[in-house]
Amino acid sequence: MALTTTDRARVDALLAEMPLSAKLAQLVGAWIGIDSTTGAVAPAQNENMPTSPDWETLARTGLGHITRLYGTRPLDPTDGRTALRRMQSELRRESGIGAIAHEECLTGVATWKATTFPSPPAYGATWDPELIAEVGSAIAASMRALEVHQGLAPLLDVVTDARWGRVEECFGEDPYLVGTLGTAYVRGLEEGGIVATLKHFVAYPASQGGRNLGPVHMGPRELTELLLYPFEMALREGGARAVMPSYSEIDGMPVHGDPALLTTLLREKWGFTGTVVADYFGVNFLQTLHAVSGSKRASAERALLAGLDIELPNADCYPALDTPDLDPEVLAAIDRSVRRVLELKAELGLLDEPTELSDEPVDLNPPAHAALARRVAEESVILLANDGALPLAAPGRIAVIGPNADTAAALLGDYSFTNHVEVHHPDVEPGLTMATILEALRAELDGGTAITHAAGCDVREPGRDGFPEAVRAAQAADVAVMVMGDRAGLFGRGTVGEGCDVDDLELPGEQRALIEAVLETGTPVVLVLVTGRPYALEWAAGRCAAIVQAWFPGQEGASAVAGVLSGRLNPSGRTTLSFPRSAGMMPTTYRHVRLAGKVGVTNLDPTPVFPFGHGLSYTSFERTDLRLSTSEIATDGTVDVSVRVTNTGDRAGVDVVQLYLHDVVAPVTRPEVALLGYARVELAPGESRDVTFQVAADRLAWVGADLEWTVAAHRASLSVGASSGDLTLTAPLTVTGPTRTLGHDRVLLTPVTTA
Amino acid sequence: MALTTTDRARVDALLAEMPLSAKLAQLVGAWIGIDSTTGAVAPAQNENMPTSPDWETLARTGLGHITRLYGTRPLDPTDGRTALRRMQSELRRESGIGAIAHEECLTGVATWKATTFPSPPAYGATWDPELIAEVGSAIAASMRALEVHQGLAPLLDVVTDARWGRVEECFGEDPYLVGTLGTAYVRGLEEGGIVATLKHFVAYPASQGGRNLGPVHMGPRELTELLLYPFEMALREGGARAVMPSYSEIDGMPVHGDPALLTTLLREKWGFTGTVVADYFGVNFLQTLHAVSGSKRASAERALLAGLDIELPNADCYPALDTPDLDPEVLAAIDRSVRRVLELKAELGLLDEPTELSDEPVDLNPPAHAALARRVAEESVILLANDGALPLAAPGRIAVIGPNADTAAALLGDYSFTNHVEVHHPDVEPGLTMATILEALRAELDGGTAITHAAGCDVREPGRDGFPEAVRAAQAADVAVMVMGDRAGLFGRGTVGEGCDVDDLELPGEQRALIEAVLETGTPVVLVLVTGRPYALEWAAGRCAAIVQAWFPGQEGASAVAGVLSGRLNPSGRTTLSFPRSAGMMPTTYRHVRLAGKVGVTNLDPTPVFPFGHGLSYTSFERTDLRLSTSEIATDGTVDVSVRVTNTGDRAGVDVVQLYLHDVVAPVTRPEVALLGYARVELAPGESRDVTFQVAADRLAWVGADLEWTVAAHRASLSVGASSGDLTLTAPLTVTGPTRTLGHDRVLLTPVTTA
Repeated sequence: MALTTTDRARVDALLAEMPLSAKLAQLVGAWIGIDSTTGAVAPAQNENMPTSPDWETLARTGLGHITRLYGTRPLDPTDGRTALRRMQSELRRESGIGAIAHEECLTGVATWKATTFPSPPAYGATWDPELIAEVGSAIAASMRALEVHQGLAPLLDVVTDARWGRVEECFGEDPYLVGTLGTAYVRGLEEGGIVATLKHFVAYPASQGGRNLGPVHMGPRELTELLLYPFEMALREGGARAVMPSYSEIDGMPVHGDPALLTTLLREKWGFTGTVVADYFGVNFLQTLHAVSGSKRASAERALLAGLDIELPNADCYPALDTPDLDPEVLAAIDRSVRRVLELKAELGLLDEPTELSDEPVDLNPPAHAALARRVAEESVILLANDGALPLAAPGRIAVIGPNADTAAALLGDYSFTNHVEVHHPDVEPGLTMATILEALRAELDGGTAITHAAGCDVREPGRDGFPEAVRAAQAADVAVMVMGDRAGLFGRGTVGEGCDVDDLELPGEQRALIEAVLETGTPVVLVLVTGRPYALEWAAGRCAAIVQAWFPGQEGASAVAGVLSGRLNPSGRTTLSFPRSAGMMPTTYRHVRLAGKVGVTNLDPTPVFPFGHGLSYTSFERTDLRLSTSEIATDGTVDVSVRVTNTGDRAGVDVVQLYLHDVVAPVTRPEVALLGYARVELAPGESRDVTFQVAADRLAWVGADLEWTVAAHRASLSVGASSGDLTLTAPLTVTGPTRTLGHDRVLLTPVTTA
Repeated sequence: MALTTTDRARVDALLAEMPLSAKLAQLVGAWIGIDSTTGAVAPAQNENMPTSPDWETLARTGLGHITRLYGTRPLDPTDGRTALRRMQSELRRESGIGAIAHEECLTGVATWKATTFPSPPAYGATWDPELIAEVGSAIAASMRALEVHQGLAPLLDVVTDARWGRVEECFGEDPYLVGTLGTAYVRGLEEGGIVATLKHFVAYPASQGGRNLGPVHMGPRELTELLLYPFEMALREGGARAVMPSYSEIDGMPVHGDPALLTTLLREKWGFTGTVVADYFGVNFLQTLHAVSGSKRASAERALLAGLDIELPNADCYPALDTPDLDPEVLAAIDRSVRRVLELKAELGLLDEPTELSDEPVDLNPPAHAALARRVAEESVILLANDGALPLAAPGRIAVIGPNADTAAALLGDYSFTNHVEVHHPDVEPGLTMATILEALRAELDGGTAITHAAGCDVREPGRDGFPEAVRAAQAADVAVMVMGDRAGLFGRGTVGEGCDVDDLELPGEQRALIEAVLETGTPVVLVLVTGRPYALEWAAGRCAAIVQAWFPGQEGASAVAGVLSGRLNPSGRTTLSFPRSAGMMPTTYRHVRLAGKVGVTNLDPTPVFPFGHGLSYTSFERTDLRLSTSEIATDGTVDVSVRVTNTGDRAGVDVVQLYLHDVVAPVTRPEVALLGYARVELAPGESRDVTFQVAADRLAWVGADLEWTVAAHRASLSVGASSGDLTLTAPLTVTGPTRTLGHDRVLLTPVTTA
């Protein structure tokens, strides 16, 4: 995708002849046809949503981005493609340059009739980067079919607070895990020709109180180690060509206007050459939410000078720069950004007439994509607890209870088209046909099993009128499968999702009361959680016969859940989000220093109910023979760490071997455990395999007091176990030699081999 | 107190002839006679409490500090003084140098029989620096009588999280309020000849999850603006001669080992010349809790090199430095610290034989101190809500209900001798005779009033056996006065206090259930909260007839509470801690940027139930005529801000006039409201007074992206009102002129005049 010399010359020529108004036009998007009835895309803006100029004006002046043509209302994909081709043709004819079409694509292209994959915590639970790369490739194929160029995903936000509504859009709470899975997804998109957009750069999840857009209280060391790390990895290892700043302000500096992050770090230190696109309305928010500018023009100047390139979704603040009295510095920033956009457009072919346009109808949910969505769902379902109630005994009598048992939309996240857009168009035919968990269970279990069903209560609304029916159903059954959890939505319309935060980690509405009422019957309860965040489950952990966590498992998720319940599938998901004791323990993450753990200086016990990395199987695994190729490595050395894992049960299964680092002494405080590497290993009954992690000393680096990544002599240990909270094998490792300061070229990955 | 040339020469001479062992002895304390039965002073240390050498060895080698001679077990003060004189005499005879005797003194000298004042949130609620200076003076007088030199108070910790157990030891959540009241207290101590110790330097309250010693996630801008500010003020305006580092680690750097804070900022930037004394066990914690050192010697070296002087409470790590192979840098650090200690000892007369020692018995609770404790209590009681039920109608039938109604210890904080030490000596006669609130009410109300009493439940233990009696008492009464709240204690023995953190802001134990049961009777409920933290009261605010917040009001507090209930006193306290909706909204403070407030980007409403500055009166006040002497000031200018306040009711009362700043636009994000100045104004019925605040532009400074305090041209506004949440008068103010970078010499205070 490297730019040719010819392309550079064309960009130079274009720039030289562009008037200021044409330059500014290349730096903005146009969200054509959006109106207030399509719902709250950003509530703080709704009253004053900027409108785009009429299309003739746009075509004449040119346009940087076409904003979410397919993602705004139900639009037949083939019709949409026809419309997009016409727009591009007119843009090229009038202005000489086509526009970059971008869409949301977190769990599939967010458009009507497109395959909807599981949510990112489910991606995380697979611990399977190759599979997530396939998801990226599939999404890229659909976007190419739509002639869309750029996808506004993935989120590389490392979760630090379960109260936050967008937890359901994130891979998990470890930077290495987020980085490796996010990079895989990026690779899938970029190798498929689609520009991946890393977001939200940076620190969005660490908002005060877990509240959406809340200010971030964090120092630069932690920011670098915990939150910037996956961005660095996905840029260098994944080749992402776009970055979207976070709405956040960090220690008082809004990222959309912060040159330290957008220029000094991103461009100068990391060498990023792609484009930085605003989060929707983020430029205007510099005035309206952060109050660091007093006018649209000042907002535009601050953003451009900081290093932001494109204003999205619409031209709002940037047009205020179409004035003759601009500061030369601002003019230079505009030129710099236009050059970046034109270079990307040259790469994408937008300076040329398109060739070989297909006239085949667009199929956004082909069988291969549906099958892939099913595989991700199957690998992601987590068995949190099981006293033997699972797999379900057959034949038998099963009461399927709960508000998420027979609702297909419950399977999808907030950036699915179903929950994001279709919810506002109740009269339009649903884009997808999905089985519910109830339907999948009926299909899954043979005729000898009697299944009854009662919703019992709503996901969030008060009302216990349905309790008696649910209790009666449980009383008449051998087991109650309770399918509970969230409904994803936006800005208060969901129980989780963007702008749907909580100050309480109890299951929403009356759900806990319903579960407790059913538990009272004495019928064993298998709790199936279809949620977007980890809830506080201490009360349920000892009382439910089994707990299954499915996150939002996507359009094919019901069959994956049913397959785990029936035993057709052996669960292999491992949680990448800790399950805390209560909302009042937030923020917290497994990757904490000693003093954030249990050390006897507070009466509170901050340990999780289910730790990061936890997940059971229907077989059992033993891990033995932890061996280090050397117990002492130089600060520029490498150690091979091997462990033998054995399937000691009687059915095939998958273990996720997890390698963790502990630093005994370091000059700055360090996490008690931090993930160094991982590997999914499939094992037949009785089978053993050796897993070897090749760990470079660079992977043991920390950010020192000087804010540089540093490897220094110190004592450490490496551990392996079933989860971050169950480390059964440990070996000491001493690092020796001179202190090394590492740059962006350090080793970021831990290669793994299995034998 | 400036050091004379002669003293300097004496210190030089002493240093020149001291062997290393004698130098190290000057840098440690000895906690003589402490043993495990005296309870958990720091649980993480209990198993391995270092013991002091025998007294002969100590006397011979010398000793820096005598640790809490009076504060460790019940000890008659006159006997204690005799023992201390003997120890000092032996130290001078054997080593030539006396020891600094230090004690805790947060709410009075923490020793047997000493006046116990209200807790710091009550100090805060008075908004009366002159009164708090008197408290400091009274404490200084008692310490002088005990021949103690140094007090380990005050806490200048700005509260950011109500979950934290030590909230009850802090003045409140605004840095200017904490700074001015803390400085007043320091002035009282220092002008009384006692070394004040500012703690905890810095950021202890901002611990993760509000858990004791949890790591602090905060950037340098916020640290400077919010948390360092009161320390700067109390050093410069109060002349404190000692600083105690926080146990905290900030962004991975433990303060006890951080040269950036202890040397670069404190010494080099602020010019501090006093001593830095470790928090108890804080040096060893560098190894055991922070893991930034691997041995006691390494801990000692790190602390000394960072700028710490004295290890407390005992010699633990520092003795490991008594070795011939010390690094010259460490030797120099030892000399530097010993010089500081000896200079302080010279100032304190510890290099000389004492003169004019009194033989009068020591009285630590003289009538004047008790009267002062009563005045503080009277000024601090806050009327949070009142539908007219208060003052209580007389005569009538009153049911006094609740676990804190008839318990004197409930009136005191965790660093009171009663709750800190006496609780471990149940066989010893109590040092203080205190009325309970029940007793005070009986004394307060005339014979025509019938008072019944039922505890109803315990403060924290489960059990509702007492509910029926309480409900019956309420049913038979015209009004139920429910005295509820906390019991202060340490490390899990209290519901609030050091190491007594919560993840839930409901009242402890069964208390909410008891209140709701009494509310069910229909008898009006006057809720009296004797607590150490603001609890979540949304459920109670609409249902209770009145709510009185008394914090821990001290040994004379019962009569103050009774006086407010009866109407003998007109309440004038204003809360300096916001009352949040739930623990799940934490952390939060009134002094937040726009995005931490209610701006429509999250479904949650983060506004408090009762805001910072709130408090009602039995009269009413009107604030009018907000006038600025100029609407435009230069960056080095000053503006006089006047407001007229009128008592519009029919009885005398005190208003606390509160002036707040709002910046319309600034280059970094700013608090929506921030306290600029305040004044207590006593007004007869119908009386008006003008209050004028002289605000220097320096007071409008923020910490910029370059981490410097900066005044720059911008638009702001100034507001006055009944609280931070009820600002009825606003005037614009424009700052013009060149940007100024301010140092430690900037204007920190807003002088106030009333006419």
